[in-house]
Amino acid sequence: MPMLFGMHPHQDGPLARLRRGHEDLVLELLRKHGPLSRAELGQHSGLSRTTLSDIVTELIESGAVVATAPEAAPRRRGRPVEALTLNPSAGQAIGIDFARRAVHVSAVNVAHEVIGSASEPHDPGLPWEERITLAERLVGTLADGALRLGALNAIGVGVVGPVGDPDSGPPDPCPSADLTALLRKRFEAPVLVDNNTRLAALAEATWGAAAGGQDVLYLRLSHGVGGGLVVGGSLHRGAYGLSGEFGHIAVESGDGRCSCGATGCLETVASVGAMLAAYRRAGGHADGLAALLGALAAGDPVALRTLEAAAVHIGTVLAAVCNAVGPGVIVLGGELAAAGPPLFEPVERALRAHIMPISRDRVDLRPATLGEAGGALGAIALVLHESPLLSHYPARPG
Amino acid sequence: MPMLFGMHPHQDGPLARLRRGHEDLVLELLRKHGPLSRAELGQHSGLSRTTLSDIVTELIESGAVVATAPEAAPRRRGRPVEALTLNPSAGQAIGIDFARRAVHVSAVNVAHEVIGSASEPHDPGLPWEERITLAERLVGTLADGALRLGALNAIGVGVVGPVGDPDSGPPDPCPSADLTALLRKRFEAPVLVDNNTRLAALAEATWGAAAGGQDVLYLRLSHGVGGGLVVGGSLHRGAYGLSGEFGHIAVESGDGRCSCGATGCLETVASVGAMLAAYRRAGGHADGLAALLGALAAGDPVALRTLEAAAVHIGTVLAAVCNAVGPGVIVLGGELAAAGPPLFEPVERALRAHIMPISRDRVDLRPATLGEAGGALGAIALVLHESPLLSHYPARPG
Repeated sequence: MPMLFGMHPHQDGPLARLRRGHEDLVLELLRKHGPLSRAELGQHSGLSRTTLSDIVTELIESGAVVATAPEAAPRRRGRPVEALTLNPSAGQAIGIDFARRAVHVSAVNVAHEVIGSASEPHDPGLPWEERITLAERLVGTLADGALRLGALNAIGVGVVGPVGDPDSGPPDPCPSADLTALLRKRFEAPVLVDNNTRLAALAEATWGAAAGGQDVLYLRLSHGVGGGLVVGGSLHRGAYGLSGEFGHIAVESGDGRCSCGATGCLETVASVGAMLAAYRRAGGHADGLAALLGALAAGDPVALRTLEAAAVHIGTVLAAVCNAVGPGVIVLGGELAAAGPPLFEPVERALRAHIMPISRDRVDLRPATLGEAGGALGAIALVLHESPLLSHYPARPG
Repeated sequence: MPMLFGMHPHQDGPLARLRRGHEDLVLELLRKHGPLSRAELGQHSGLSRTTLSDIVTELIESGAVVATAPEAAPRRRGRPVEALTLNPSAGQAIGIDFARRAVHVSAVNVAHEVIGSASEPHDPGLPWEERITLAERLVGTLADGALRLGALNAIGVGVVGPVGDPDSGPPDPCPSADLTALLRKRFEAPVLVDNNTRLAALAEATWGAAAGGQDVLYLRLSHGVGGGLVVGGSLHRGAYGLSGEFGHIAVESGDGRCSCGATGCLETVASVGAMLAAYRRAGGHADGLAALLGALAAGDPVALRTLEAAAVHIGTVLAAVCNAVGPGVIVLGGELAAAGPPLFEPVERALRAHIMPISRDRVDLRPATLGEAGGALGAIALVLHESPLLSHYPARPG
């Protein structure tokens, strides 16, 4: 369960599940057929008058459904009939990604279309209050036009680092609880928080390189190395909110101390910083990632060898995870993925060498397509999935 | 989706899901309250008369529910009332595990109680026809008394090796399609087939060492090394039916050729055969696993060192998988798990050394508790989960 505030809790008993199913059905019928009378809803849904009345009352109270004025002309027999319809200004959601060095925001309308995105880089040390103000300003630029903040169904938020279960609390001190309260107050909407790399995985499996994929492994090669798993069509969080930590799998020759406290993690050889350091140790000159990518593009053999050495470790870790979870698609994202074939080719060779031979041709390695907007879009996917209005999304895209 | 034959398919549209929910609700109400009239079922369920009538008719036709004769004494007002009740002889299921060197069978009654198990070892080369005859005979010993085969709801079957998607077919030639047809004909019941190690994982997470666990990693150390993952409360199969293949994750010093075709797999250092070979290379004398376990129990330092060397690799692979999927419980099973602390202690040390420090105290390593019956019990858990009569099981045990 992602951390959920402000929305009514869904107990998991059979009655609660049934009620949720009834709500979903009514909303799906309205989305499919357009406005319907209560009698028509009753026929289509098979629900009793009493049950349907309860469901409709709750949906109207939540703002998801509106009862439109009876038509001017009376129907064939009897009094004019009230029509129920989806609230056109409901179901909008925004996603905010509080990345390490930038804030990204995106918004969708009730038809699940992305109606705008905005980004702004900032200093890694920017205090949380200012990051939130920045997010608010960016969201404001989206609202200038299509987005109606008053109808916000929920806000999805991505943050760096682990996000714990609501029951047990986050696994480490992290700002997500305070952040949630602040955002909830400023936007007057429920807030869902999850790890932004995991959200990028969800976005790639929903709208990106693995759209529609039910079993997807996403690896992000950036200043940190992380990832996410979509398992059987659902984003996987693990028992304590720490799944997808591929950057902390030990690699053969790794002996560097990692930020996580362990040694020999993939991150110590495959992060942007680790690759720049290795390039410099090998005699290369690059003051940052752009210069390293430039050297790769220019065919600098030292840069290519540096990348290949890391790629072997990346492919080996991917093979281990593939043997464990059997994904159909692997998506490589993050700034380093921009290196293209000089990265992908050796990663793929190492992957094929270490994966079970029977699986070799069953998994597809692809570059991410959503870029830096992935976290914010994933936050929206998270919200749409949790929202009763859009609950069939993104598990069943389209 | 496991391979499913003979049971009516559950489409995944909202109406089909809703109908399934209605069936579940009616069955759960009958299990909870005992016999109910249609009017009482209507009150408890909130379903309309028409919808309820459809659901009840289908449940009666499927044999899950029986309509008992009206009570002799008429109720206070009007005619006598028919009572609906769970069919006491319905919902029984059997599990058959066609292991490499034995057939195991188990059966449960409608109350989900295991009412009997039976096993018989055989030569690894025994033809399939004879294995099936052996299974039939073993099931017959269970039927001698409690089990009523005529009311069999379904048969769950575990087999060695990968089991593919019903759509794409098995990933390799495997007997499961023929096997399914044969069993279905002999027992006149629907048959579900899955990998028996994955089924043992499901059984441990349902009734065994990790009962009630939502995120469980099961590793089996036997003549082969395999495993299974329970992810978010569901048995994970992977995109092509090949998840949980922990035995084929490459390990640091491993360079032996593996049965899978790759080199350096965990299985090449941690299987029964690999450990016996390593023990002999180190000067030990053991003609089989029992002798090796005896040497360990007697404190033979050569045996202990042999086991410890393999245990380091086992713990390292477990740490990698933990970082990737974040399980709450790791269950170690298979014949080698009988070694006890001389195995578990070094496995745990290597696991703690290589898992992300933040996760170190969040995962619990436990011995399997179901022994060789795990595969057959897991096959039953699989069937119970798929059966409309018992569909809340095993995702929500108890």
